[in-house]
Amino acid sequence: MQDAAPPATVSRLITYLRAVADLHGAGTAITSSDSLAATTGISAYQIRKDLAYFGTFGTRGSGYDVPLVHERLREILGLTTVWRVGIIGMGRLGQAITDYPAFGEYGFSIAAMFDHDPDVIGQEIAGITVTDIRHMPETTASRGVEMVLVTVPAAAAQGVAELAVGAGIRAILNFAPVVLRVPAGVHVEPVDFLAGLKRLSYHLRGLPVLKTPGRTQTA
Amino acid sequence: MQDAAPPATVSRLITYLRAVADLHGAGTAITSSDSLAATTGISAYQIRKDLAYFGTFGTRGSGYDVPLVHERLREILGLTTVWRVGIIGMGRLGQAITDYPAFGEYGFSIAAMFDHDPDVIGQEIAGITVTDIRHMPETTASRGVEMVLVTVPAAAAQGVAELAVGAGIRAILNFAPVVLRVPAGVHVEPVDFLAGLKRLSYHLRGLPVLKTPGRTQTA
Repeated sequence: MQDAAPPATVSRLITYLRAVADLHGAGTAITSSDSLAATTGISAYQIRKDLAYFGTFGTRGSGYDVPLVHERLREILGLTTVWRVGIIGMGRLGQAITDYPAFGEYGFSIAAMFDHDPDVIGQEIAGITVTDIRHMPETTASRGVEMVLVTVPAAAAQGVAELAVGAGIRAILNFAPVVLRVPAGVHVEPVDFLAGLKRLSYHLRGLPVLKTPGRTQTA
Repeated sequence: MQDAAPPATVSRLITYLRAVADLHGAGTAITSSDSLAATTGISAYQIRKDLAYFGTFGTRGSGYDVPLVHERLREILGLTTVWRVGIIGMGRLGQAITDYPAFGEYGFSIAAMFDHDPDVIGQEIAGITVTDIRHMPETTASRGVEMVLVTVPAAAAQGVAELAVGAGIRAILNFAPVVLRVPAGVHVEPVDFLAGLKRLSYHLRGLPVLKTPGRTQTA
């Protein structure tokens, strides 16, 4: 038994899975750490180290067995089961997400939609009837929903997160631009596209980072 | 002169900025690495190291000067200027993004919207008239657009990215679930919410990662 892998490792595994899934889909049987490095931008050394950590995926010197790596990464990431997902907030963002085609391919199934707006409750979106958010506990229970996407405005996000946690949800994908406070044991993944814009800003700015010489602070 | 900071450092700076902006907004004058660690989930040691790298932000032992750290992080990240942003693809996702209130606060201004659908071209969304995607080069030039958000379906994303690069754009925030191939010098930041779901899947799965004993592979 080991502890869970650190977040950076999990992110790399997700990147490897995406690359290997493409190869698998294209019928490629064998790949190498150099080839994966070229596709993913992660160093071949890091790839060898990460994959060696999780098992033996081929014969030394002859490359990785693509179907084996693909299946094992899916297992490690828990993607061999179907996760039932609920969307809280069926405004434009919530609706836009239902258009996302890659959901099903990765084992995520939208099983419930919630809103508080009487005009939206009862509407059918992508084949699912929007439920009153007040009925979240019984709906998530009866439909086996284990993850929710929070797509409400920032001011409402903490409140709906608490409702979801009260309904037994332990995994939240948060699109609202606020930090959610949740009890220990509940996982929140933020989807912060402003962070992406800020990284672009940093790159476009094009200036080197200036270092002021000085001692390490102990503040 | 130094090289640009590595991506993980830039991500941490963005996290610090968010925490410090909240403190600044609340009128807090002084903070500590322990306090920032509690808010951000990054270790106090890492915070002290990162901030020391960029300068001296207070008096040893008495904490960080919040307005100073806030301003300096904004400078480092290039957020003291206003970036003009274009959105390519005014479907539900593109429209949902225009609802995002935090844009302006961080110095991003939506200056152009593009689509290829004759029914959408000419429509006014959030005060901006949607331009025919064929007029991207002259529109980005005349409006000073330097970043674009790609919110078209996956199959169209590479094509519009090439149009954007041809129009002189060097920074792309990509919402489509595909890897964009761009020339050197062009930065792409993916917004991949499936990655967030996969990380949640890994956590919910709750199983320890099994290690198969064996040598490091050299594939």
